[in-house]
This record gives sequence, structure tokens and C-alpha cells, in this order.
Amino acid sequence: MKIDIISVVPELLSSPFQHSIMRRAADKGLLSVHVTDLREYGIGAHRQVDDYQYGGGAGMVMMCEPLDRCISKLKESTTYDQVIYLTPDGITFNQKIANHLSCMDNLLLICGHYKGIDQRIRDIHVTMEISVGDFVLSGGELAAATVVDAVGRLIPGVLNDETSALTDSFQDDLLAPPVYTRPADYKGHKVPEVLLSGNDRLIEEWRYDAALQATKTKRPDLLKE
Amino acid sequence: MKIDIISVVPELLSSPFQHSIMRRAADKGLLSVHVTDLREYGIGAHRQVDDYQYGGGAGMVMMCEPLDRCISKLKESTTYDQVIYLTPDGITFNQKIANHLSCMDNLLLICGHYKGIDQRIRDIHVTMEISVGDFVLSGGELAAATVVDAVGRLIPGVLNDETSALTDSFQDDLLAPPVYTRPADYKGHKVPEVLLSGNDRLIEEWRYDAALQATKTKRPDLLKE
Repeated sequence: MKIDIISVVPELLSSPFQHSIMRRAADKGLLSVHVTDLREYGIGAHRQVDDYQYGGGAGMVMMCEPLDRCISKLKESTTYDQVIYLTPDGITFNQKIANHLSCMDNLLLICGHYKGIDQRIRDIHVTMEISVGDFVLSGGELAAATVVDAVGRLIPGVLNDETSALTDSFQDDLLAPPVYTRPADYKGHKVPEVLLSGNDRLIEEWRYDAALQATKTKRPDLLKE
Repeated sequence: MKIDIISVVPELLSSPFQHSIMRRAADKGLLSVHVTDLREYGIGAHRQVDDYQYGGGAGMVMMCEPLDRCISKLKESTTYDQVIYLTPDGITFNQKIANHLSCMDNLLLICGHYKGIDQRIRDIHVTMEISVGDFVLSGGELAAATVVDAVGRLIPGVLNDETSALTDSFQDDLLAPPVYTRPADYKGHKVPEVLLSGNDRLIEEWRYDAALQATKTKRPDLLKE
């Protein structure tokens, strides 16, 4: 999979894709992430990318022309399955959308900054609008990194053990059960005995019950869907 | 505000806090973010921090001892308002929680990795569990960066114009209205005339109507609360 990202602060994204699982995905040739600096398409000597918003009010708006030229240039060499704008008023990102996007070949992610991008770019170019949650970030960069991470780890071969992703929270609409590792007794805090029993059937039952109980208590909405 | 973050891949967090608004917050002395490498508290020559999970199954679990020693060490010099574990089964992060946390003095964020942290650390040390959304990341680092960004920009003085944050999505349970900037006509795509009218009352009405319409269409759940 290839993911292009457009950003005015590309340096903010320099570290998240160079380590851990995302690095492994790149090394294996399974995921290629490239960040394009929107300022390369900025206007004039100052490479302007934003301007005051029409109608007044605080916060700058990212202009049509730099984005339009940047997106059009990228589209010359790549056919994108989706052109995604990260914005708080998009559809709320979840594991189902991550699963869906992990089957795509090419994605283009647009990071807003300041007050957002000119609505006309959304009308002209954007095919999907994603929000990572009901909160506001200083830019779309961390949202883009979040989507890339959640999607990237689902690409077959990225995780060392495929079954690890299948037992994650949300894949079966249940929260994950508690996990424990050695020692069995840490300063008097003990691991539930069943997990030490070696009885796979009992362990499986305990985990299912714990997952169901955690979901009922913390997120009953997941069970209603 | 001071935020400590515990991570096994601290280098993943090297770029997000060094640019843009988070950098400005640090330069102004309004927000100090420090990442502690959990491996410094790892066990033995290999500085082990994780082990196989009790009961079997794919995915490693972060051990009690390194986390307990690391958290205890940090607590020696700082009294934390909240010790927060980033986990998919925590309460769902939103703008209200961001507002709430922006009033704190000291926060400690714990990033899980692999299959998560030993449940006993949650029982012993953690006071708040936050999920940034119904999806799974390869670690808690991007979730922590997201919380720091959402909270950090709300600290008074961080944004250049305070009113910018107040008109963001979610602060009034409405999505933000569309925004436009120059030119008024971009390749035949025009800015709504009212925004060019100079009539503040009409503009305010148009924005409220557009925000309400967007919320009704895309996120009716926000209006029901």
C-alpha cells in the first residue's frame, strides 16, 4: 500500500513512521508513506498557503490554489482509491473503517491546519472525510498518523503474528480482557488462578466472560449495535 | 502544565512536540512535555520490559516491575493530578475531557505497546484510562501525542487568538460551518455571497444555520445529548 500525506508541517511527521511497527512495514515493502510539503506549492516569495477567512473571525483558512495544484500533481502519477481529508466533522474513524482502508492500494491524506481548508477543495477533490474523534487538534497531522498506524498494522504481513490483530479490542465488538505476565505474584498482587491452570477451555471462557463484563460495564453501546 | 510520558519507543515521539503549536507552548513556558524511556527501567542485561502473557495467546504483555519502578521514580519528584493509561478500553476521549485536563498541573501518560500492560499496574497506579477512539493502534504513543495536542492547545496563551478555540467543532456541540478564503471565485467555484456581504448579523446567522445543518446531517447524535 502507498499512502501520500499533504501537510504544512511535514517535519511533525518525521518520527512516527520511522520506528516500531510502521518501520517494519516499510522495511518489508508492505507500506510506503510519503509526506509532501504543501509549502512547495505555496504562492509567491513567501510560499503563502493560508489567508483570512471570508466573513471574518479568528483563524486562518488554507487556500484553494496550493492544495489544488499539490493534489493535481500527485494525481498525475497515482490513482487514489480515496482522497481523505482529516477533519473533526468527518465520519468517526473506527476499526471497521481501518479494516476497509487496509484493503486499498493508494490513499491520499490531506492534513488541515489553522481553521481548516477552503470548502471548495473538499467539494472538488475530497472523496472521504474522517474524524479521529470528538476533539480538536492543532492540525490534521496526528490524525493522519493515527489513521496510517491503525490501517498499516492490519496489512497482512505487517504484524509478526496475524492472530494478534484478530484478538484486539473492537474486532469482535468486545473490549479486550485483562492481560497478565510474570511474575504470578507481584508484591502480593496475584494473577487470576485460571490463567495459570493450563486448561485452555477454562481460560478461553474466563477471557470471554471478562471481555463481555468489561464491555457491559464500560461500553454497553458496543453490544447494542 | 507539565506532562510526563512513559514509552518503550520514545523516539517515536521526538517530532510531534517540537513543531507548530506544541513548540510554541513549550517556548512560552506554558507546557513542558518529557518522555521517559521505559527501557531505562528494564530488567537484566537486555533491559526486558515485556513477557509472554499468562494463559497463552499471541502478543506480549508489558511487565509490572519496570513500569512500577518507573512510575514510582517519577512520582518521587512530581505529584500527578492524574496517572493516565492510553488503552482502547478506556473512556472515549472528547473535547470535554480535553477541557477538563487542560486545567490540571501535572499529568502522567503511560503508553502501552504490544498487547498492553499487566492489569496489576492498572490496579495499582492508574487513575484514569483514556481511549482516543474505537480502533487499535500499534502503541499508545500516537494516542498520548493526540491527548497532549488536544489538551495543550487549550491552555490559556498557547493559541494566538483565544477565540479561535472557542469556535472550534464540539465546543458548543455543533460541527464547525464551512470556511472559505480568497479568491472569491476559484475556477468557477464561488464563495457563498453572504460571506462577502460585510453584514455581520447575516454572516453569523448563515454560519449558525450551516453548523446546525452539518450537525443534523452528519452527527445527529451530538444534538441529542
